[in-house]
Amino acid sequence: MADVLTPRSVNYSQWYNDLVMKADLAENSAVRGCMVIKPYGYAIWEKMQSVLDKKFKETGHENAYFPLFIPKSFFSKEAAHVDGFAKECAVVTHYRLMNDPNGNGIVVDPEAKLEEELIVRPTSETIIWSTYKNWIQSYRDLPIKCNQWANVVRWEMRTRLFLRTAEFLWQEGHTAHATQQEAIEETEQMIKVYSDFAEHYMSMPVTIGVKTANERFAGALETYTIEALMQDGKALQSGTSHFLGQNFAKAFDVKFANKEGKEEFVWASSWGVSTRLMGALIMAHSDDHGLVLPPKLAPIQVVIVPIYKNDEELAKISAVANEITSKLVSLGVDVKYDSNDNRKPGWKFAQYELKGVPVRLAMGPRDLANGTVEVARRDTLQKQVVSLEGIEAYIVDLLDEIQKNIFTKAHDFRAASTHYVDSYDEFKKVLDEKGGFVFAHWDGTSETEVKIKNDTKATIRCIPLDQPDEAGVCMVTGKPSNKRVLFARSY
Amino acid sequence: MADVLTPRSVNYSQWYNDLVMKADLAENSAVRGCMVIKPYGYAIWEKMQSVLDKKFKETGHENAYFPLFIPKSFFSKEAAHVDGFAKECAVVTHYRLMNDPNGNGIVVDPEAKLEEELIVRPTSETIIWSTYKNWIQSYRDLPIKCNQWANVVRWEMRTRLFLRTAEFLWQEGHTAHATQQEAIEETEQMIKVYSDFAEHYMSMPVTIGVKTANERFAGALETYTIEALMQDGKALQSGTSHFLGQNFAKAFDVKFANKEGKEEFVWASSWGVSTRLMGALIMAHSDDHGLVLPPKLAPIQVVIVPIYKNDEELAKISAVANEITSKLVSLGVDVKYDSNDNRKPGWKFAQYELKGVPVRLAMGPRDLANGTVEVARRDTLQKQVVSLEGIEAYIVDLLDEIQKNIFTKAHDFRAASTHYVDSYDEFKKVLDEKGGFVFAHWDGTSETEVKIKNDTKATIRCIPLDQPDEAGVCMVTGKPSNKRVLFARSY
Repeated sequence: MADVLTPRSVNYSQWYNDLVMKADLAENSAVRGCMVIKPYGYAIWEKMQSVLDKKFKETGHENAYFPLFIPKSFFSKEAAHVDGFAKECAVVTHYRLMNDPNGNGIVVDPEAKLEEELIVRPTSETIIWSTYKNWIQSYRDLPIKCNQWANVVRWEMRTRLFLRTAEFLWQEGHTAHATQQEAIEETEQMIKVYSDFAEHYMSMPVTIGVKTANERFAGALETYTIEALMQDGKALQSGTSHFLGQNFAKAFDVKFANKEGKEEFVWASSWGVSTRLMGALIMAHSDDHGLVLPPKLAPIQVVIVPIYKNDEELAKISAVANEITSKLVSLGVDVKYDSNDNRKPGWKFAQYELKGVPVRLAMGPRDLANGTVEVARRDTLQKQVVSLEGIEAYIVDLLDEIQKNIFTKAHDFRAASTHYVDSYDEFKKVLDEKGGFVFAHWDGTSETEVKIKNDTKATIRCIPLDQPDEAGVCMVTGKPSNKRVLFARSY
Repeated sequence: MADVLTPRSVNYSQWYNDLVMKADLAENSAVRGCMVIKPYGYAIWEKMQSVLDKKFKETGHENAYFPLFIPKSFFSKEAAHVDGFAKECAVVTHYRLMNDPNGNGIVVDPEAKLEEELIVRPTSETIIWSTYKNWIQSYRDLPIKCNQWANVVRWEMRTRLFLRTAEFLWQEGHTAHATQQEAIEETEQMIKVYSDFAEHYMSMPVTIGVKTANERFAGALETYTIEALMQDGKALQSGTSHFLGQNFAKAFDVKFANKEGKEEFVWASSWGVSTRLMGALIMAHSDDHGLVLPPKLAPIQVVIVPIYKNDEELAKISAVANEITSKLVSLGVDVKYDSNDNRKPGWKFAQYELKGVPVRLAMGPRDLANGTVEVARRDTLQKQVVSLEGIEAYIVDLLDEIQKNIFTKAHDFRAASTHYVDSYDEFKKVLDEKGGFVFAHWDGTSETEVKIKNDTKATIRCIPLDQPDEAGVCMVTGKPSNKRVLFARSY
């Protein structure tokens, strides 16, 4: 089964595409750039949604739903936003089709042209702030902390499943506050929610930082990001949280009367993660055999495969397997007992490896006789014969160990792939020969940042929050710098 | 607070609009026909989703996600479907905006015209069956039982919040089967899932039946429906499940090799419920004071309001209220303790009545001294003083009783509003004077059905599954009929 996938060492990009398709995660659709998320892929996304949604609610947010369409004129209201978002997008111009009078099937009815074109939302700041205007009069109406789970469309020219698609699924939080400080605290809180999710659920270490002015969200005063390192040495931006200042409040005239009765503009944040996280999850951990899923996000955490020659053997194994299954289910474990007679055990083993099931139990007549079961870990591919006595507790512990081990492995990989360089030559050499995260001094100017990007395709992923102050000089211009920033090539 | 709403007797339609707005359920947006679902309304929808999603999974379905856009040509592939769905819809014709060279802000880039227009999905049979073609080769690939939670767009000219909006949220199940019988069983199973949900969660009695040929889903061989009666005597179609035969398989050439290796077209069903259920829920139970929510779908099931003169009293009440709250929460009850100091108890009482919170506890110093609490039911508006001893069990029972009572009330209302008529004059008279469900004999022809609709605005809501055979004659034509069908004016 391993040869189903192109090995990473041969062609990482092809390996990724193979894996997404073969593990039944997603596929391209008949509509250019739009994907179909298949049930197994969607089940992982649902686990992500469920954890994140709970965290959002625990931090005081409520879900709501805002329109798919945005009037074209709304994009012009926030100067920076229009350049960032009102370009490559799907434009609805008509609202009716008709039978072609010349018999050429159905055509757009030219009479049904919209007065103002509607844009399929690429992000919802504008439509939401036009709504918040009606919700906010006084400080008593604040804060507003809404989130929505939605589809958005950005007309990308080059698309890749999960990583960059014309339509994708995401959540977008949009909050409104009475003070600057509260909006900044919200922005920072949410990037921490994301990093906590990435590290404790996706088992994926991330670097938290702020974007440079060039890389900020269109309309934001500050963009916080979590950056993860993929196995090919490229960075993947995995979530962002934006402090929007009063920009959208000013664009949509959203004011509130403060406690003294004076009118002020409202302060804003927005933050989001998307199905791009699926791409991050796949590329952070998987191997040439297939997916490696952290147990907390695996739709099937344990699979039990019976090995038998006849119905009698199967019946005996099934009795034990069903007992283990029901005990594990009662402990909150997602278990599948695969007694499908159409496939051989070897085929099943390979299939569940491909799909990243964290723990596989194989059980044959000899195991039954010995009171044992063969336990295989997906993360290390190790097998071990374990006593059936107390097997459920053993598996619960093992799932926890796998969750941690996957994180440790990714963490060690990142440590080994993190470089500190002081000269531009060394910078280029490291990027070309090793890739990974590169910490270097930068003079803080857009000009230098753009030059580095043009020269090397590496960008400043972020100015890490926990980066210590350190006097140095910009590797390109020699101008002074007081802190290293994080460079990488990226998705 | 009651005078916030137009009374139902004065203007039912205005009452509905008032209620949707004032109870913070939804509002119109800046985009014609598209609504904003506000947090309180969305919380009810989330409870509906959660119950339904569980039922879908228990019946063997998996969630997936298919593209928002459908190529225009797909609609022409199924003859009946094109007439039903490819008319009033949002058409994407361009994929880019640009700055107007004449300085008139942003305009559609004429260079970025799509070769083939994309339709924002009004329903997804076509895009899903074009996908299933790649998933299905052999009987081993069947059945496929997918559901998706999604937004859809139908360009309605006259819109009403929840009941008829250009964009709405829904779920759509799409299943593929090897045999006709299995597809029909699936179709019937899902209409039963919907009726069970309507009756046991929404406390809303429904009549299950099949649609006449005229009223069938475009492309279906049989459409099952659940029909509910609203308080103004009009019917509301609340969910449908379609047996699609092999129509979409033939349109998209989806065949499978059966066990004998012979190729056959695949059999299909599709089924859906939408945010229209919110409209049904509101209109089935609510009164001139506001929403009446069945406890199983109420975001807040119990609210506790303290009545106090000073901080000392509040502290004592809060201690007891917090204890009750945590005990109720541990029993799975959604409780809110509203100690907000900005509002008077009377304002809060009215507010929670408006929002349909099933149980309200009011607690003052005298209650504390007596070891009692005042319990108010939203459904009957009755108040009772109850001992604090065992209050949690009392409330859990009360929520159950309210759930049942709301159903009984709606059931009794439907019984009182159901009429059996045998002449067309009586039929018209009942419709005009009483409204409600009218059971009458019909000759089975489209001509008669259309005549009745044109004469009276009443349609055949369904041919109920449990309607007994009964010899009779059509009230219009006098031709023989062997069963009464259900007529009503409807939303």
